[in-house]
Amino acid sequence: MRMHETAPNSTNDLVAYCQNLGRRARIAARQLATIRGDRKNDWLRRAADGLENRGDDILQANAHDLDLAGQFGLSSALTDRLQLTPERLRAAAAGLREIAALPDPVGRVLDSSVRPNGLQVDKVSVPLGVILFIYESRPNVTVDAAGLCVKSGNAIILRGGKEALHSNEALHGLLQECLGETGLPIDAVQLVASGDRAAVDHLVHLDSFIDVVIPRGGESLIRRVAGEARMPVIKHYRGNCHVYVDAAADLNTAERILVNAKCQRPGVCNAAESLLVHEVVAEVFLPRAAAALRQCGVELRGCPATRRLVPEAAPATEEDYAAEYLDLILSVKVVANLEEAIDHITRYGSQHTECIVTNDLPAARRFTAAVDAAAVMVNASTRFHDGHEFGLGAEIGISTDKLHARGPCGLVELCSYKYIVYGDGQVRGEA
Amino acid sequence: MRMHETAPNSTNDLVAYCQNLGRRARIAARQLATIRGDRKNDWLRRAADGLENRGDDILQANAHDLDLAGQFGLSSALTDRLQLTPERLRAAAAGLREIAALPDPVGRVLDSSVRPNGLQVDKVSVPLGVILFIYESRPNVTVDAAGLCVKSGNAIILRGGKEALHSNEALHGLLQECLGETGLPIDAVQLVASGDRAAVDHLVHLDSFIDVVIPRGGESLIRRVAGEARMPVIKHYRGNCHVYVDAAADLNTAERILVNAKCQRPGVCNAAESLLVHEVVAEVFLPRAAAALRQCGVELRGCPATRRLVPEAAPATEEDYAAEYLDLILSVKVVANLEEAIDHITRYGSQHTECIVTNDLPAARRFTAAVDAAAVMVNASTRFHDGHEFGLGAEIGISTDKLHARGPCGLVELCSYKYIVYGDGQVRGEA
Repeated sequence: MRMHETAPNSTNDLVAYCQNLGRRARIAARQLATIRGDRKNDWLRRAADGLENRGDDILQANAHDLDLAGQFGLSSALTDRLQLTPERLRAAAAGLREIAALPDPVGRVLDSSVRPNGLQVDKVSVPLGVILFIYESRPNVTVDAAGLCVKSGNAIILRGGKEALHSNEALHGLLQECLGETGLPIDAVQLVASGDRAAVDHLVHLDSFIDVVIPRGGESLIRRVAGEARMPVIKHYRGNCHVYVDAAADLNTAERILVNAKCQRPGVCNAAESLLVHEVVAEVFLPRAAAALRQCGVELRGCPATRRLVPEAAPATEEDYAAEYLDLILSVKVVANLEEAIDHITRYGSQHTECIVTNDLPAARRFTAAVDAAAVMVNASTRFHDGHEFGLGAEIGISTDKLHARGPCGLVELCSYKYIVYGDGQVRGEA
Repeated sequence: MRMHETAPNSTNDLVAYCQNLGRRARIAARQLATIRGDRKNDWLRRAADGLENRGDDILQANAHDLDLAGQFGLSSALTDRLQLTPERLRAAAAGLREIAALPDPVGRVLDSSVRPNGLQVDKVSVPLGVILFIYESRPNVTVDAAGLCVKSGNAIILRGGKEALHSNEALHGLLQECLGETGLPIDAVQLVASGDRAAVDHLVHLDSFIDVVIPRGGESLIRRVAGEARMPVIKHYRGNCHVYVDAAADLNTAERILVNAKCQRPGVCNAAESLLVHEVVAEVFLPRAAAALRQCGVELRGCPATRRLVPEAAPATEEDYAAEYLDLILSVKVVANLEEAIDHITRYGSQHTECIVTNDLPAARRFTAAVDAAAVMVNASTRFHDGHEFGLGAEIGISTDKLHARGPCGLVELCSYKYIVYGDGQVRGEA
């Protein structure tokens, strides 16, 4: 196995280093595109075994990162995300085995037709090519992302957070070793060995080597990457998700969904951040919903109508309606009708996940048609917006874009397609 | 009907003008997203009637553009592309009626599953939103693009070439008038009234209003747009397409396909620019192919092996192998085997359209799997790479990208999707 690359020292070195990563990834991707599925699955299972059986080196590297965490000023929440444990390594191994068990996304005939002149036109799934994946602290994401990309026939360049560099180097070392052992190109999984921010700026200009960038992290990182990148970017912005309780809602259902959407895991992008209530049910629903939320420790910030019914609610500002709290806070607004709810969501929503609770069919149809979001839930919690819950398998992120991938971005979304046309010597006549 | 916008005069005016276009398009797109298909089809048919019955104003505006063509230094080929005739207007009308006859691409359930917990997860096609379409001289493209975008529920901002401005204004006036008459939002089709290049620079920064940019034109235009745009760009780069004649090719078929691919319409992106011949058939095939191509006036530029067999061929340079001639010129290379052909295509090809002529099944399978192009043809002319020929209907372009749309970009590719999830009060348990 090739020795781990050392980080470059000067700007010229860094540019050359990034180009070299890109060039190698392109070559690996070409090889990987036509490799049989069982060899990719062998690699996934071997890497899973390695995570379980040879985790000591990885945990040691992780301990080194944890020692340095204070130096990077990491909060305790971020330090927890950074930490690996034998249990977390077992979970990562289970994730790789799950990916191995999924059908190969490459080479499927997605559509096919025979034209009147006898041409057979097949639309066939193919890998995207080379993916640059930029992410923050959690080192288990390194394993997930590499597994998904290689399974879908793509080479990946991993750019993790500098606070996880030693953990990622250890994980990457294991993944590459297993690539070598299963005869896959070892450059199918590469790690940017430099913590230098400028490395990202160089990489996102290499559109001849890199087909797509997937940044996962804070909004400012994603905006910076999207602004600089010369290749397409699959973006994962924030989720300002609403639960709208319609006039025709079953209020028990509404309460259960609201509490789940807000409280089951408040720090994630598909958690609810805002409640809209139709005025005809507000008087009955809001006091009981407030009581249930209070029990979970949720702070409410509401419109004047809300505060008349729930006096403990603080006044909601424009910023509240626009906020992704990722915390036990909920903005609340009473609306005159369904259209006002839709308009509010259009104005403040982030096109991530929106929910209506109603038993009225026309209301459900109007809401699902008019609300522009990656997922629209009818009588179900926003928390279900997830690749596993949708039955799509593991995901590399949830896209808030509308092109290529929207919502869960899994194996299928990591593929493109080509047309393969079979003929018997057909030529084209005059137009 | 609102009067036609006049072009802004100052930079500040231009910025405000572009923002206004974007804001209006966004509002129109929201309305258009839920409008019934029959109303969109009414508009298409009414506009088609208008092109046929009220073409005089349009032809007069076009005559004005033709008068000014010399001032813009247009070649006679470009002037021909700019010209409208009653026949070309009838063809544009027929195009709109054809779009009206296609199935509505919006609201289709693309995939659906019921999860073990009873959630019904539907993946449903939706419009992309607002499309900025940048194109060059041919004014009939104005009509095609507007028809495809509105049919797919998208608002379009048209930015045609300045040499076609009067023609485009007349066409746009008709299209908007018909929008008003059929009760569709008139801002569904807007035209940038300014020929100022800076307008494009402003528009491609408006990512809150515009969802995707589709530039169609020269490579430098596309590169400039892709470099500046803050939103995704569907690119249509050049086609350096190869015909590879394998050892196991039927040579009659090979000659017929080669001549068609090179000569049937040499100025388009899916015409062949380069011939690769397996060395075991070169001695028989090249002299007869050269004779057939000579009859069509094709100039050959070949490798040394080619020139031994076809003495009149000029020597081919690196630039020749990389060139998209769009002319009656063909580069030729004799290769030792299939893998050398694939390597050559990987190096010089533009991932547009590649062709193998062979009766050998493993060769066909290897070529179609290993060659990375939007369309790979087996025993059929490269000229078939086209939305109509593939049975996909009219297209707004042929994408050489790998994300979202690859190959013909028609109604389906002008759509995104959303997940609509129906439940009965389901909430998510602990992970």
